[in-house]
Amino acid sequence: MIFDNLPTPVLILDRGVLQRNLDAMRERMRDRGVMLRPHLKTAKSAKVATLALGDTDGAVTVSTLAEAEYFFAAGFTDIAYAVGIAPARLDRVAAIRTKGCALKILTDNAPAAEAVAEHAAGNSSTFDVLIEVDTGEGRAGLPPDSDDLLEIGRILDAAPGVALAGVLTHAGHSYACEGPEGIRDVAEEERAGIVAAAERLRAAGLPCPIVSTGSTPTATHVEDVSGVTEMRPGVYMFNDLKQLSIGSCARGDLALSVLASVIGQNRRHGHLLLDAGALALSKDISAHDADPAIGYGEVCDAETLEPLAGLHVAGVSQEHGVVPVDDPTMFDRLPIGARVRILPNHACITAAGYDRYHVLENGAVTEEWDRVNGW
Amino acid sequence: MIFDNLPTPVLILDRGVLQRNLDAMRERMRDRGVMLRPHLKTAKSAKVATLALGDTDGAVTVSTLAEAEYFFAAGFTDIAYAVGIAPARLDRVAAIRTKGCALKILTDNAPAAEAVAEHAAGNSSTFDVLIEVDTGEGRAGLPPDSDDLLEIGRILDAAPGVALAGVLTHAGHSYACEGPEGIRDVAEEERAGIVAAAERLRAAGLPCPIVSTGSTPTATHVEDVSGVTEMRPGVYMFNDLKQLSIGSCARGDLALSVLASVIGQNRRHGHLLLDAGALALSKDISAHDADPAIGYGEVCDAETLEPLAGLHVAGVSQEHGVVPVDDPTMFDRLPIGARVRILPNHACITAAGYDRYHVLENGAVTEEWDRVNGW
Repeated sequence: MIFDNLPTPVLILDRGVLQRNLDAMRERMRDRGVMLRPHLKTAKSAKVATLALGDTDGAVTVSTLAEAEYFFAAGFTDIAYAVGIAPARLDRVAAIRTKGCALKILTDNAPAAEAVAEHAAGNSSTFDVLIEVDTGEGRAGLPPDSDDLLEIGRILDAAPGVALAGVLTHAGHSYACEGPEGIRDVAEEERAGIVAAAERLRAAGLPCPIVSTGSTPTATHVEDVSGVTEMRPGVYMFNDLKQLSIGSCARGDLALSVLASVIGQNRRHGHLLLDAGALALSKDISAHDADPAIGYGEVCDAETLEPLAGLHVAGVSQEHGVVPVDDPTMFDRLPIGARVRILPNHACITAAGYDRYHVLENGAVTEEWDRVNGW
Repeated sequence: MIFDNLPTPVLILDRGVLQRNLDAMRERMRDRGVMLRPHLKTAKSAKVATLALGDTDGAVTVSTLAEAEYFFAAGFTDIAYAVGIAPARLDRVAAIRTKGCALKILTDNAPAAEAVAEHAAGNSSTFDVLIEVDTGEGRAGLPPDSDDLLEIGRILDAAPGVALAGVLTHAGHSYACEGPEGIRDVAEEERAGIVAAAERLRAAGLPCPIVSTGSTPTATHVEDVSGVTEMRPGVYMFNDLKQLSIGSCARGDLALSVLASVIGQNRRHGHLLLDAGALALSKDISAHDADPAIGYGEVCDAETLEPLAGLHVAGVSQEHGVVPVDDPTMFDRLPIGARVRILPNHACITAAGYDRYHVLENGAVTEEWDRVNGW
């Protein structure tokens, strides 16, 4: 059996599926005529990033400065840090940039823009700054028509050493869609909003070279990208039950799973116990919007990844997963020590519990690829 | 200000509160006349473990073999691994024991007991095995009156190289209580059940030196421990909003918090954005049973840890925490770059996102203590 020699729990990455997902997104972006700047917050792996870029230019996106430092050390030099900058992080940003990394930062507010300008003036540091625009998600960012957009643009553009690098948005509300049609509508909302913001900056005489959009759902289903220069999907590399539930991928596109062992059979209470609990799976239940029965993950045959008669991890404690069993023959099929694979709700959050991937290729686990966690 | 020089997010451990929690539990166990075998799955830190034991014997509990190896390397030699053993882990258990660690393992089923016996016979390895008993939680373990209890006891006792070390239970259902009275009832249920199991083994001529109970709620409120030899609380070291909500600790006993920075002010949608999201806080919402408004954590003044006008992290994405703001003066009080501390729902799960503690003592962060994550 493929996994007999592996400890559990471990994170299994199917290289064949990964490669198909990476190729499909690269081809899609090429067809649309827009640059792919993959978001590495899901994979957090230099090896995956290299495969994601393939023969394209090396622009990437990160969610932490730890990722920026790790990927820069691995040879990636054009990095967008796509979380609003905290002024206290500017020293660290400047240090990375001084070493030769074209690290771009993000803000949606004047105080941070002023802090960037002051840092540059006081330390002879330089910064490339994107302005965050809200195109419907309602989390961070300015509305395209806001007065602050121009004010922040002017602060940045006027500051010596600071370059206004463009505008960036994340249509996170695409995760609330119920299929491709709704996602296409959000993708157009995202495009129209960010292009409107870019045009307002340009009309005010400000530069706006980068016009950045992208989530996995919108990058997958977008049709018109007029005016957009790059897209930043991330979870498409692995996909997960959440992406499956909103029609952002197909079942065969799920590249990530958790290998676990059966450590208990509680026939009295009608459940199996796995050695994958809250730390191995995370407590993310984001696919519940579509199907609460998914619990903390779908339990599959370890070898084939076929679903096992509707088994799900219904409960987790720190190191235990509880899998209700309706059909008592499952106790015979999954004896103590048996292996299963669990498909997670949300690849980004589940993967964060691990420091490496065990890479499955041609029916064998052949490599381990590291990940960068923390901040 | 205390935290000005720290990056965010970081995990802050208040050493004074920690020490009080540790002293109180040690004293309580001493008063009850029962050995404290603290569960290190929450702290995962040799430094905390040393403080937890104080002047008592060095027996501890772990939830992974990675913890067992780490704590053994740090000098702890009497370790109970309190998650049901997967047979594939026996090689690793044997290797730790060969180095001189009195590592005890746990099972509730005959196939695993037989695998232990076979491993000992085939590899000249030795094992100390506890039998897991269910005293009401309904997760793992055998009922005290089950036939399997005696069968497993006989398999283990008869196997050369294998010692039946006793019985162990975890009254996890104490977490569902609504105050000390209910917890006391569960503690008595836990005690009566495990003692009944021990007595059945002894009546059958089998040894049962260890009679192990304990969760933080039951260890905190237990009155009668007759027949119990040790208790294994863990989260009492730090406590959290869940323990507070069930009356297992007081507000002043909360030792763990996440330091975060304000990175956005979305006045249009009425919320602040923090740089602590799903990875910094976890998606654990276990205190919601008592108060769903707690969200992903309570937002407090960074210096005093006083609650900030009812602010809570209502939503998280990977690196963003969304904090709804009803009182607009909070936007002035918490400008971009301001620091806050967040009290987590569940210390064990939140802490797992970090590789170290930043230790707050006498108004300053003086040390960093490492943690062991993974498996």
